[in-house]
Amino acid sequence: MPRTELEYPKEPYGTVKRYSPRASYALRTIHTIINTSPILHVSFNDPSPSSSPFPTILPMLGQMGSFARPSADEGDVLDLYLHGYVSSRLINISRQPSSSSTPDAPPPPPGLPVCIAASHLDGLVLALTPNAHSYNYRSAILYGHATLVSDPSERLYAMQLITDGVVPGRWAATRVPPNKGEMASTSVLKVRIATGSAKIRQGPPGDDKGDKEDGEVTGRVWTGVVPVYQVLGEPVAGPYNEVKEVPGYLGEYVRETNGMTREAAFEAAKKVVVKKGGEGE
Amino acid sequence: MPRTELEYPKEPYGTVKRYSPRASYALRTIHTIINTSPILHVSFNDPSPSSSPFPTILPMLGQMGSFARPSADEGDVLDLYLHGYVSSRLINISRQPSSSSTPDAPPPPPGLPVCIAASHLDGLVLALTPNAHSYNYRSAILYGHATLVSDPSERLYAMQLITDGVVPGRWAATRVPPNKGEMASTSVLKVRIATGSAKIRQGPPGDDKGDKEDGEVTGRVWTGVVPVYQVLGEPVAGPYNEVKEVPGYLGEYVRETNGMTREAAFEAAKKVVVKKGGEGE
Repeated sequence: MPRTELEYPKEPYGTVKRYSPRASYALRTIHTIINTSPILHVSFNDPSPSSSPFPTILPMLGQMGSFARPSADEGDVLDLYLHGYVSSRLINISRQPSSSSTPDAPPPPPGLPVCIAASHLDGLVLALTPNAHSYNYRSAILYGHATLVSDPSERLYAMQLITDGVVPGRWAATRVPPNKGEMASTSVLKVRIATGSAKIRQGPPGDDKGDKEDGEVTGRVWTGVVPVYQVLGEPVAGPYNEVKEVPGYLGEYVRETNGMTREAAFEAAKKVVVKKGGEGE
Repeated sequence: MPRTELEYPKEPYGTVKRYSPRASYALRTIHTIINTSPILHVSFNDPSPSSSPFPTILPMLGQMGSFARPSADEGDVLDLYLHGYVSSRLINISRQPSSSSTPDAPPPPPGLPVCIAASHLDGLVLALTPNAHSYNYRSAILYGHATLVSDPSERLYAMQLITDGVVPGRWAATRVPPNKGEMASTSVLKVRIATGSAKIRQGPPGDDKGDKEDGEVTGRVWTGVVPVYQVLGEPVAGPYNEVKEVPGYLGEYVRETNGMTREAAFEAAKKVVVKKGGEGE
């Protein structure tokens, strides 16, 4: 673990321009938001000449990790490993070299330029006026270059990392290692991160003084926060399940996760926020 | 409401290529997934010459609607209205004309090419092998051209649409209409949709025959679905709230939403899926 908190460089394309007091560039904050997000949104452009003018977004699974130093924690420099059942297009494109070089510029890092977003909704912030309405949220964005992982042992490392990201300990509790056919059919993308940022909003609504001092308005408009959190329900056994009891690691994960997400949403709702200059809703 | 279900055209860039039996192009399916998603991920490229190779993703609020025909329902042709506290960059860019034309091609539709994604996680699908693990989910993607809404009455329509998308009936229960300053400072983007698609996975895990017939594996690996759903917590009054009781429309929305999302996640977990040819996990 580094002694001081590492931060991503503030590149023009990756800098939070609005409500910047809510922004963070700390690796630990950003990586934690990414790693606790069950779905990541991955955006890229198809570099083929016949491509459409639109970027594409694919929902994918991913986890931050370091194959070279597996003991690295979320505050360290990490790569993002991605795996998605809908990622064949992205995977085909990322086999090709990056197409963003110009004659005089230094060659760009290999891989497909991608942008990855993770957003957690923590609450509906209901204010006196529609304009002051907001969400409590934690969002992160990463920019980097994606390449296909060819080394089988790195692929195996990433597959375990991603599976255990869904339910900790699940990998070892299943039929592993993957057989030859499974290894051959599984593609993993590794994103070398160029930069990233996070944005977090917590606390109650913040209306303008004029509305807060208008008794007619405050007397009839309820203001506050509806906490929002994701719940894991009681596990439902599948048709060919033969294990009678829900295993301990799974039951525990469900209970612990539910306790934490609920508490975090209520804490965010009640948070006392010290306003800095220039911050609006 | 149209008599038959409308579908988006299958453009090469918008066609689901993997597990295509899970795909849908029905406007109603896609629009419902978008409208029930509290956060949309909006991707675009900065067209300025000094821009980075990376597309960007912004988390935004949005709702599908028709200003010309406000009574249109989710199965109709609709526009997507976007509003986001972090959207100033996107809004500046969308003032500019589209930059994707070539000398011989017909002029492109005005606006910035954007891609919008919405993803709902409904369950963790835990199988015998890591490879057969999956999620139950409903995801949708839209492609279109974004322009800034200049007509004040259309802006007002969109602001109400988006506010009531957060909590139905909230707009009328607040201090409205927005004053001049609020109208001037609020930007709304309208996306004319080019095409879109949805992808839905439901049901229990589906392992390969070899693993399902291996008693050693089925005897020790629990298989099934952990339903996942979003919960709205008990509303937390803010520091300057003077309305003692949580209003009826809000309490009802919280109760109804919680009932529906929980039921949908458990239904998806238990769904009997008739497998079509070519579908894997």
